[in-house]
Amino acid sequence: MPEKVISRAVIRRLPRYYRYLNELQYEGVERISSGQLSKLMNVTASQIRQDLNNFGGFGQQGYGYNVAHLKEEIGKILYLDKVHNMIIVGGGNFGHALAGYRRFEEKNFIIRAVFDVDKSLIGTDIRGIPILDVAELPAYLAEHPTDIAILTVPKSVAQEVTDILVANGIKGIMNFAHLDLEVPDDVTVESIHLSENMMELSYRLGERR
Amino acid sequence: MPEKVISRAVIRRLPRYYRYLNELQYEGVERISSGQLSKLMNVTASQIRQDLNNFGGFGQQGYGYNVAHLKEEIGKILYLDKVHNMIIVGGGNFGHALAGYRRFEEKNFIIRAVFDVDKSLIGTDIRGIPILDVAELPAYLAEHPTDIAILTVPKSVAQEVTDILVANGIKGIMNFAHLDLEVPDDVTVESIHLSENMMELSYRLGERR
Repeated sequence: MPEKVISRAVIRRLPRYYRYLNELQYEGVERISSGQLSKLMNVTASQIRQDLNNFGGFGQQGYGYNVAHLKEEIGKILYLDKVHNMIIVGGGNFGHALAGYRRFEEKNFIIRAVFDVDKSLIGTDIRGIPILDVAELPAYLAEHPTDIAILTVPKSVAQEVTDILVANGIKGIMNFAHLDLEVPDDVTVESIHLSENMMELSYRLGERR
Repeated sequence: MPEKVISRAVIRRLPRYYRYLNELQYEGVERISSGQLSKLMNVTASQIRQDLNNFGGFGQQGYGYNVAHLKEEIGKILYLDKVHNMIIVGGGNFGHALAGYRRFEEKNFIIRAVFDVDKSLIGTDIRGIPILDVAELPAYLAEHPTDIAILTVPKSVAQEVTDILVANGIKGIMNFAHLDLEVPDDVTVESIHLSENMMELSYRLGERR
């Protein structure tokens, strides 16, 4: 593992490398030059070389990159070789859709339980994932080591639920509630604000009119 | 409207300003200094001043910003004063959840119809939004001017559906399918790759372990 700090921009690009390498591997491609990868991914070959040099390179002059090896190494950098145990808090439409989202599982992000307040949902399941009472969260977390909580509760209760998660040891939160969560320094939050993505699209569309 | 090019980073921050101003307005706050806004939003006051200066300022020395006015101006920059007619293609769990997502509507992004191939869904509706046969897409788009399509179809058909959308005049796509869409230069795509957000969270979590 490298000692130097890697920029956020590089880290943000790694999942995309991983996705392309995964597809190449699926298609039976064994090796690829930075030039070919560059064409495929629509980024410059020099950017690819620079990005991957952050992690010690992986490429060989005149050979290019070994697809399986590079994919595996990027996977390790992203900790995809580790199983992440996850819960979803908020079993409404959005939480429900995410519980059915198989692409997480493929990357070792496993949803173990969904929590809600709705008595008509509690006790049911989403393709085998149990829906539990949100009041049981502390007891559940005490017994089941959990890496990441996906937060899909209404904005009005999102901070309150976050405080419970943090008090019970959660260090990673994927936040779909439309506010900025307050968390201690040792907790990592990734926020997805869909209406803000929509506004950015709106700006880019309007700009071109 | 400003003549100069505004950086993507500034544009990305505008929806967040809009969100905070919206809440301040809701709470009855009429004016706010860049210092107060800075504290609230956890960015430097100088960044706020710099960002807003891109659009001619809006602030007054010694007065601060008029919340309602600033919100309205940022809304105009993001074209939120315009109604965006939208469709969703893909009525599965995710499309269904997005059709029920009221936060889009609040910003004038109105979902008019959902399209699917599933005969058991076609003819039903999601809180009044009709689910139509995807085969009717060209005919629908010819009759209903549509600004944005939300794409929630499986990856395997996403490019094919995109080609149909583009051939029928769609200029803006919000893409939830897990691939990079190929579109002509005059079409704008905003992609949300949730598993890539998850990988980034995984990296940031792992880094801190």
